[in-house]
Amino acid sequence: MNYKIVSNYLGRILLLESITMLPSLIMAIFADGLMPTVAFAVSIAVCAGVGAILIFCLKPKNRNIFSREGCVIVALSWIAISIFGALPMTISGAIPSFVDAVFETVSGFTTTGATILTDIESLPMSVLYWRSFTHWLGGMGVLIFLLALGPDGHGSGMPFQIMRAESPTPTAGKLAPKLHLTARILYSIYLGLTVLQIIILICGGMPVFDAVTASFSTAGTGGFSIKNDSFASYSPFCQTTLAVFMLLFGVNFNIYFLVLIGEFRRVFKNSELRTYLAIIAVSVAAVTVNVLKMFDSFGEALHHAFFQVVSIITTTGGTTLDYEPWPEFSHGVLLLLMVVGACAGSTGGGVKVSRLVIMWKAFRTEIKKLLHPHAVSTIEMDGEIVERRTLSRCGVFFFIYMVIVTLSTVLLALEGTDIETNFSAVLACLNNVGPGFGRVGPAMAYTCFSPAGKILLTFDMLLGRLGLFPVLLLFVPATWNKRK
Amino acid sequence: MNYKIVSNYLGRILLLESITMLPSLIMAIFADGLMPTVAFAVSIAVCAGVGAILIFCLKPKNRNIFSREGCVIVALSWIAISIFGALPMTISGAIPSFVDAVFETVSGFTTTGATILTDIESLPMSVLYWRSFTHWLGGMGVLIFLLALGPDGHGSGMPFQIMRAESPTPTAGKLAPKLHLTARILYSIYLGLTVLQIIILICGGMPVFDAVTASFSTAGTGGFSIKNDSFASYSPFCQTTLAVFMLLFGVNFNIYFLVLIGEFRRVFKNSELRTYLAIIAVSVAAVTVNVLKMFDSFGEALHHAFFQVVSIITTTGGTTLDYEPWPEFSHGVLLLLMVVGACAGSTGGGVKVSRLVIMWKAFRTEIKKLLHPHAVSTIEMDGEIVERRTLSRCGVFFFIYMVIVTLSTVLLALEGTDIETNFSAVLACLNNVGPGFGRVGPAMAYTCFSPAGKILLTFDMLLGRLGLFPVLLLFVPATWNKRK
Repeated sequence: MNYKIVSNYLGRILLLESITMLPSLIMAIFADGLMPTVAFAVSIAVCAGVGAILIFCLKPKNRNIFSREGCVIVALSWIAISIFGALPMTISGAIPSFVDAVFETVSGFTTTGATILTDIESLPMSVLYWRSFTHWLGGMGVLIFLLALGPDGHGSGMPFQIMRAESPTPTAGKLAPKLHLTARILYSIYLGLTVLQIIILICGGMPVFDAVTASFSTAGTGGFSIKNDSFASYSPFCQTTLAVFMLLFGVNFNIYFLVLIGEFRRVFKNSELRTYLAIIAVSVAAVTVNVLKMFDSFGEALHHAFFQVVSIITTTGGTTLDYEPWPEFSHGVLLLLMVVGACAGSTGGGVKVSRLVIMWKAFRTEIKKLLHPHAVSTIEMDGEIVERRTLSRCGVFFFIYMVIVTLSTVLLALEGTDIETNFSAVLACLNNVGPGFGRVGPAMAYTCFSPAGKILLTFDMLLGRLGLFPVLLLFVPATWNKRK
Repeated sequence: MNYKIVSNYLGRILLLESITMLPSLIMAIFADGLMPTVAFAVSIAVCAGVGAILIFCLKPKNRNIFSREGCVIVALSWIAISIFGALPMTISGAIPSFVDAVFETVSGFTTTGATILTDIESLPMSVLYWRSFTHWLGGMGVLIFLLALGPDGHGSGMPFQIMRAESPTPTAGKLAPKLHLTARILYSIYLGLTVLQIIILICGGMPVFDAVTASFSTAGTGGFSIKNDSFASYSPFCQTTLAVFMLLFGVNFNIYFLVLIGEFRRVFKNSELRTYLAIIAVSVAAVTVNVLKMFDSFGEALHHAFFQVVSIITTTGGTTLDYEPWPEFSHGVLLLLMVVGACAGSTGGGVKVSRLVIMWKAFRTEIKKLLHPHAVSTIEMDGEIVERRTLSRCGVFFFIYMVIVTLSTVLLALEGTDIETNFSAVLACLNNVGPGFGRVGPAMAYTCFSPAGKILLTFDMLLGRLGLFPVLLLFVPATWNKRK
C-alpha cells in the first residue's frame, strides 16, 4: 500500500469539500444567523486544515496508483467526506447526534436519500442546501469531480484505477483518450442536464431555492427534499418534470455522449437502455392497473405510478404520496425495482440493469450448453464479447450482494423491528434508494433504529454506492501490506 | 429430443410408483375401510396402466440420452409422479381439491413438507403413510431409485445425465465405476440410516407407525408429521434423535461412503462438512442466547434451538414448537438458514453449503485479483481445482435463484397477503423447507393462498428440488426440437 499517495488524495478531497461548503457559508451569513454561520465556518476551516496537513506533510515520492490504491483511495475518501460533511449539521444543532449526522451525510453523498429527520422544514436554509448538494456531488462521484478539475498529468492509466473503483459498474469505459477529459465530458453533461432541469422547474412555477435543491436531489438520484412531504406539494407539471429528469439521470451517461457525437444507431441498439425502458414501461403499467381503484381517474393513477416507479428504479426515492397503503403487489414491484436499479454509468444505484442483462445472457448460455454440451459459446453485449473476467465478477457480485442483504437483515433484527421494515431498510440503503416499507416507509424517517442499527445501514449505503468491492477491501489485511 | 426414450422412462417411473403404493393399499384394506381402499386400488391401476402404455406402445429405437433428455426425463418424471401420486388423496376424499392434492404431493416428493391440511390427524392411516413415504422416495431421488433397481446396461454415461439432473448439486460424483452401483451404494446407506433411526425411536418409546413415518419424514428431510403439532408431542429423547438424524441426512452421502471405506482423513478435511457443522454450531448458539428468556432453563432453550436450527438448515421443517413468537433476530437466522440449506449430495434442499463455499472462494479470488491484478488464480476445493464451468454455473445459479425469489414474491403479492408471508412462503417452498413465517408459520397451513398461488408455490418446490435448470429447460422451445 502506497500510504502517502492515499493521504495525498484524501487531502485533496477534503480541500475540495471545504470549497464546496462555501455557498452554504454565504447562505448562512445572509439568511440563517449565528449558529449555522459558525458551523459552516468551523467546518470549512477544519476540512481545509486537515486537507492541507495531509497534502503537505506527507509528500508522496512515488505516485503509482494500482487497483488496490484506487479502491482504498475511493473508500476512504467517501468515509472522510461523510464524516467531515456531517460537521456543520451537528455544530449548527440541526442534527445534534453525530451518528445521525453521519448517517444523513452518507445518505446524501451515496444519493440514498434515507433520512433520520422528522421535521425537515425546520432546518436552516444553509443546511438544507448543503444536504441537497451532497446528492449532486455524490451522484457523479467526488473523485471524478477531482479528475475533471485538473489535468493530473502523472501518466494515463493510474487515475483510471480510481475512476473504475468509484463507478460501480461492471465495465468502466473511457469516452476520451485522456481520463480527465472523460471526467470533464461526464460532468459537463451532468451540469447541463441539471441546469436545464432547474430552468424548466422555475418556468413551471417552482420557487428558485426549491428548483435548485430538487434538481440537485433528482440529478444525483438521491431523493432528499426540503419539504416534509417530499415532492407531494409541487404541481403535477413540476412532478412530471422531476420524474422525467430522474429517468434521464438513470441512463448511462455514455448514451448522452453518443447522442452528442451523433451516433444515434448505437443509442437505439443499446441493450441496457432498451431493457431499462422496457422494465419501466411494464412496471408502470402493472402498478397503474393495480392502484387504479385508489384514484379518481386513470390519468391520476398513471401519474403517481409513473413517478413512484421511476423514483424507485432510479433509486432516487422521492415520492408524490405515501405508497404504504398501496396493495401488496405494488409494494412487491417497487421492492423488485429497488434491486434492479438504474443503468450502469448513471447516477443511480442498485444492482444495475447491465449486470442483469449480462447475467441473463449467461443464463441463456448455460441453457444452450445443456442443449448442446459441446458447442462453444461466448456472451456478446452490444457487439462486444463480454470477458470471462467480467462474467465471473458479476456472479461473485450477486453472491456477495445476497450475503450482505441477508446478514444485514439478520443483524438488524436485533433491533426488534419487524422483518418487512428490516428487509426493506436494508434494500433501500444498500441500493441507495431511501424510503422502504413498514416503519421506514415514505412517510416515516429512519428513527426506529438504535445508533448501532444506523451505523450498519450507513455501511450498507457505502457498500452499495461503491459497488461492494472497494469497501470490502478495507477489511482485508493484505490490502495494508507494504508493497514489495 | 428423443421422445420415445423420455416416454419409456416416464412409463417405468409410473410402474415403480404403482408398486410403491402397494403397502398403502394393504394398510387401507386392513385399517381404513372402503374409500381409501378404492382410492389406492384405482390409483395403482391407473399408474400401472399408463406406465405400461408408455413403455410398450412407444418402443425407443435409439436409447441415447444426452443432457437435454436427462433433464427432461427428470423434470417430467417428477411432475408425473406428483400428479399420479395425488390421485389417492383426492379419490379417497382426504383432500377433495385436486390442486391441493398435487400441492401436497409435490410438497411430499420434493421433501418440502408444506401442507394445506389443517387437521392432519383426521386422515386415513394409508394416506398418512403414503404422504410420509413420498418424502422418503423423493429424498434420495426416484430416478436414482430406478437406477439402483436394475443394471441398466445401455452403456455408461447415459443414465449419468439423469443422475446429474436429479441431484441438484454443483458437481455430481460417481462412487463406483458403474452408475447403478453408485445408486445402490447411496440407497443402501439411506436405507441403513433410516432403519437405524426407526429402531432407536421405537426403543425410545415411540409407537411403530409414528417411528416409521417420522423416520421417512426426517430421512428425506421433508418434515411431514402425522400429528397436528408436528413433532411437539414426542419425548425430548425422541425429538433429539430426530434432530440428530436430520443433521446426519443433511450431510453429503459421499461422506458416509468415505467412512465405510475407512478414509477418515478426507472426512475430517472436507470443507463442505466443516462449514455445515460450523454454521449449525454458530446458529444454535445465537438462537439459544436470543430465546433464553422464553424458556425455564438453558437446557430447554438449547434443546429447542438445536431442533429448529437443524430442522431448518436441513430444510426438513418439522418443529417442536411454534417459533412464530420467537424474537425477530431468531426469525432472521432461520430465514438465512432456509437459503443456506444442507450439503450437496444429501437429501436436504436449499442453495447448498458447497455452492456457498465455492462462491466464497471465488469472492476471495476476486479480492486477490484486486490486490494482485496479474497473479494467476485458480479455485481449489478439497484438493481439486474447481472448473471455470462449475464456477460460472454457480454464479448463474445465484442470479436465477434471486430472479425466481423476487418474481415469485411479487406474483404472490397479488394474493393480497403480506410481504413477510409471501417472502417466507417462497423461500420455504423454493428451498424445500416447508413452514415459513406469518400466515404460513409452523402452526399454520398454506390455506391462505388461492389455487393460482398454490400452483406458483408448487412450481417453486419443483424448481428448488431439481436445482432450477431441468425445470426451466422445459420452457425453452429449442429443447423440443428433433435432434439433427
